Amino acid sequence: MARLGGCWAFLCRCFFQYETPKILLIRSKKVGALNRLVQALILAYVIGYVCVLKKGYQDTDSVLSSVTTKVKGVALTNSSQLGLRVWDVADYVIPPQEESSFFVMTNLIVTMNQTQTRCPELPSSSTNCSSDKDCSAGFVDVRGNGVQTGKCVNFSDSARTCEVFAWCPVETDSEPPNPAVLANAENFTVLIKNSIQYPKFSFGRRNILPDVNTSYLRNCIFDRKRDPHCPIFRLGDIVSEANEDFQSMAVHGGVMGIHIRWDCDLDMPESWCVPKYTFRRLDNKDPDNNVAPGYNFRFAKYYKVADNVETRTLIKGFGIRFDVMVFGKAGKFSVVPTLLNIGAGLALLGLVGAIAWHRSNLYKEQKYSYVDDYALVSTSHQFHLFL
Amino acid sequence: MARLGGCWAFLCRCFFQYETPKILLIRSKKVGALNRLVQALILAYVIGYVCVLKKGYQDTDSVLSSVTTKVKGVALTNSSQLGLRVWDVADYVIPPQEESSFFVMTNLIVTMNQTQTRCPELPSSSTNCSSDKDCSAGFVDVRGNGVQTGKCVNFSDSARTCEVFAWCPVETDSEPPNPAVLANAENFTVLIKNSIQYPKFSFGRRNILPDVNTSYLRNCIFDRKRDPHCPIFRLGDIVSEANEDFQSMAVHGGVMGIHIRWDCDLDMPESWCVPKYTFRRLDNKDPDNNVAPGYNFRFAKYYKVADNVETRTLIKGFGIRFDVMVFGKAGKFSVVPTLLNIGAGLALLGLVGAIAWHRSNLYKEQKYSYVDDYALVSTSHQFHLFL
Amino acid sequence: MARLGGCWAFLCRCFFQYETPKILLIRSKKVGALNRLVQALILAYVIGYVCVLKKGYQDTDSVLSSVTTKVKGVALTNSSQLGLRVWDVADYVIPPQEESSFFVMTNLIVTMNQTQTRCPELPSSSTNCSSDKDCSAGFVDVRGNGVQTGKCVNFSDSARTCEVFAWCPVETDSEPPNPAVLANAENFTVLIKNSIQYPKFSFGRRNILPDVNTSYLRNCIFDRKRDPHCPIFRLGDIVSEANEDFQSMAVHGGVMGIHIRWDCDLDMPESWCVPKYTFRRLDNKDPDNNVAPGYNFRFAKYYKVADNVETRTLIKGFGIRFDVMVFGKAGKFSVVPTLLNIGAGLALLGLVGAIAWHRSNLYKEQKYSYVDDYALVSTSHQFHLFL
Repeated sequence: MARLGGCWAFLCRCFFQYETPKILLIRSKKVGALNRLVQALILAYVIGYVCVLKKGYQDTDSVLSSVTTKVKGVALTNSSQLGLRVWDVADYVIPPQEESSFFVMTNLIVTMNQTQTRCPELPSSSTNCSSDKDCSAGFVDVRGNGVQTGKCVNFSDSARTCEVFAWCPVETDSEPPNPAVLANAENFTVLIKNSIQYPKFSFGRRNILPDVNTSYLRNCIFDRKRDPHCPIFRLGDIVSEANEDFQSMAVHGGVMGIHIRWDCDLDMPESWCVPKYTFRRLDNKDPDNNVAPGYNFRFAKYYKVADNVETRTLIKGFGIRFDVMVFGKAGKFSVVPTLLNIGAGLALLGLVGAIAWHRSNLYKEQKYSYVDDYALVSTSHQFHLFL
Repeated sequence: MARLGGCWAFLCRCFFQYETPKILLIRSKKVGALNRLVQALILAYVIGYVCVLKKGYQDTDSVLSSVTTKVKGVALTNSSQLGLRVWDVADYVIPPQEESSFFVMTNLIVTMNQTQTRCPELPSSSTNCSSDKDCSAGFVDVRGNGVQTGKCVNFSDSARTCEVFAWCPVETDSEPPNPAVLANAENFTVLIKNSIQYPKFSFGRRNILPDVNTSYLRNCIFDRKRDPHCPIFRLGDIVSEANEDFQSMAVHGGVMGIHIRWDCDLDMPESWCVPKYTFRRLDNKDPDNNVAPGYNFRFAKYYKVADNVETRTLIKGFGIRFDVMVFGKAGKFSVVPTLLNIGAGLALLGLVGAIAWHRSNLYKEQKYSYVDDYALVSTSHQFHLFL
Repeated sequence: MARLGGCWAFLCRCFFQYETPKILLIRSKKVGALNRLVQALILAYVIGYVCVLKKGYQDTDSVLSSVTTKVKGVALTNSSQLGLRVWDVADYVIPPQEESSFFVMTNLIVTMNQTQTRCPELPSSSTNCSSDKDCSAGFVDVRGNGVQTGKCVNFSDSARTCEVFAWCPVETDSEPPNPAVLANAENFTVLIKNSIQYPKFSFGRRNILPDVNTSYLRNCIFDRKRDPHCPIFRLGDIVSEANEDFQSMAVHGGVMGIHIRWDCDLDMPESWCVPKYTFRRLDNKDPDNNVAPGYNFRFAKYYKVADNVETRTLIKGFGIRFDVMVFGKAGKFSVVPTLLNIGAGLALLGLVGAIAWHRSNLYKEQKYSYVDDYALVSTSHQFHLFL
């Protein structure tokens, strides 16, 4: 009982006492001023950098976005192969819808009326032949157009190549037309509809701003100076803002990035939260290292003609893929990050007191005391946490 | 040699000595209790918030996901233009596969039997004409359907417009049918297969849970209460869970987000790691700011009829795009973050001792000592780090 | 005036004085050595882990990427239904282009010459019937192929099912052919073009390295040992590197991830910044839980035959979707993160002095002083921050 009472008294004493380091106040013009200067720098950092620039007093959320696009425009072409032909959005946007990207065909190599039959392969080191012995039936070249039948046939008056079973006639592997067939794609426009949400703040907004009406939308074209908030972009403008030449890009194709940045300070009026558009070419166009340039792919339109025979038109389409990427962060005042940042700032200030000081013989004696442990019996040592 | 010995002795002394601040223990009921209270708060924060709520003792990894979708359902339509017609998945899902998104057509405007020829453009301020002088051959309006031929022709009994070379007849630019043609899409279902991996923990899981068998999967429909783990969703349920009306959304189209959240505590049994589904409309449907609503795009089916003439059926398809987004974090006990968090907590506790204390005249003398530096010669000052 | 002077003097005294804790230097072999050991460990951590391993002295940026893919290869199939047929890229890549993903069809079930008409539904528990009474006109089964007409007709000699209005004949719901029809897809190759940018450092690079020329690119195939930088991959190699069997995966389809990792230290020569490729199966193939395995989707090719009747060929395509994912971080020396990391390291060192020390009766008197607050009048207490 007495022991319990003693224990209780000890706990009480512990609970109602606290520790504080002993402090030496030194009056020194040089070091005092230096000390204050460092403290001022840290205060400036905490207030200026953390609070004002980085907005450390705000809670942040990242953007949730949905993008839809709609291309408009018509191009007229006149070639010996296709005759006079008009191209509209259903012809040159392939596939017709994608999640946050769209492809506009600007150039093409068409191979019409292909059927499944036999024909001579294109000449190359592995398909040139002088007799049937040079061709092996059933051989498939991964870069070829079909399966060899084992015969050697005339490709042209001068060349003989192995015959293949394939979609015939095979596509002639030539450079794409220059200038591009659909060079007029420069004047096409695209309406980009982008709705964003910051779920944490229940805040939503779209790039068609509230003050925009239908008649403005029917006639505007994005212009960084005059119409910076019009969501309709001329393709040629997108490419030229990225310091590229549309006509030369149209020949071999490429990939453009359309970046939409939504940085919103929700402590400010909502109307200050507007998207910023930037454009950038994403694929490489280094002329010194021009292996496999541009962007193209093959697709086909399938037909059935009389007698139920399937034919197709093969199109090697060159064009520009536009990838729409939406970035952004929203910030709003919140108690927790504010306290965290102030706390971290104060901790920094506290460190200063410990880091920089002046040591001179005069107050060395005042600051330091010495104990010699060597004579001690080392049984009673124990670790203790600085609380 | 003597100098080296002295240096060595100095290093030894340095190595085997350490510094500790001098402490003043103050017995004060008020401040002692306050001090302990703050310490208790910090301990509660470290244990409660960092360890229990935020699971600071865990190493985390973010999710690697793969999504495939499969829509099922059949709709019957009966229109004067198309007659009785049944629509299945190959007809209304365009394109047939996408990476983590699928589009279901719910409404459409069909323009059949278009060929490349000449026809009057739709009436508008820039195409209305009274004579050939009002039309300029070769002019292309970016919002038009073709290239003007320079002639002014009858569009209808009452209106005359410029003739265009285009896919003719041109699409009549009218409002989409209301109610939607494929209103029955509300009853379509989609099976979403989602496999996730947490590579750091070599942990994989899929949203078809291990206890699900084929017969359950053949008949179940997701229901937040009865079947929260069935991966088959009725499109109408997805939309109504997001507090939207499917039938009105079906008319102009829209974009829905399907969010799958995998938050897994890998210290718990594996069977606790299950996906949570939420649904949200991503595009804007603000009735006050209803410029360019909904989601639609144009695509065409190409045919070749007799005489090798190419015709096409142009479809302006309205519908709902569903974007599947997979989020998630997995946590598992790990030594490094545990130590880091405990260390940060202790550092906070240590700060308290330095921050809050009581100053009164009685022990001010005990805590503070004063040294005056003004008289010192300032040649011997040097900076020293508090180790 | 006198008061202002006093205030000014006080501010001056404040400004030119600074506080430093009083320090007790203890000479103890045991604790001193321990103290130095902990300090050495922290120094090793700061230098070894933060600076060398984590490169804490660098500013980092995350990758901005663009991916385009091009599949090559030809497969020959011979079936009773389709006859001898050759398949090229326009036939088996669906859709022809996607943002960072491509699908290669490896197996298929074809239903040819479907038209909109009436035919018996496939037998199942809900469609089997013995008389017209068992079928209800207008009923649509969400898993069925069409709309019931209310009649019960012969499906085969032995079975009678409800008649449906649908694309007829309906697809027979059978297992996909095994081995896969396009088993030869194993030998197809894909050229992956990946351009990356680190915008913060104005640094761009592509996976076709500068020392690669056109002739190398025409003949190389990626091989982890011999050609680790060739951007052309054999599909069979991708699958087998992920420890999967192509032929069994080809039957039901699946999803493969192609991971490209660009970790670049921009303080090093630019030529060290090369992509690392890894491959991983993303969908589940757990044989114990094999509900709804693989990956397939339905699409159709539409034809118009004589009399303007629309027919279609429905294809249920099984295949492998390859998702290309680009990761990476670039680091470059920068002053701010270097200072931050050194500062954090010093703060850690400083904490050690406060945490571990030796308490023994001998110097307890030296370290601790006691003040008793109980007798004090508690009017003059105030809080003060340790600066």
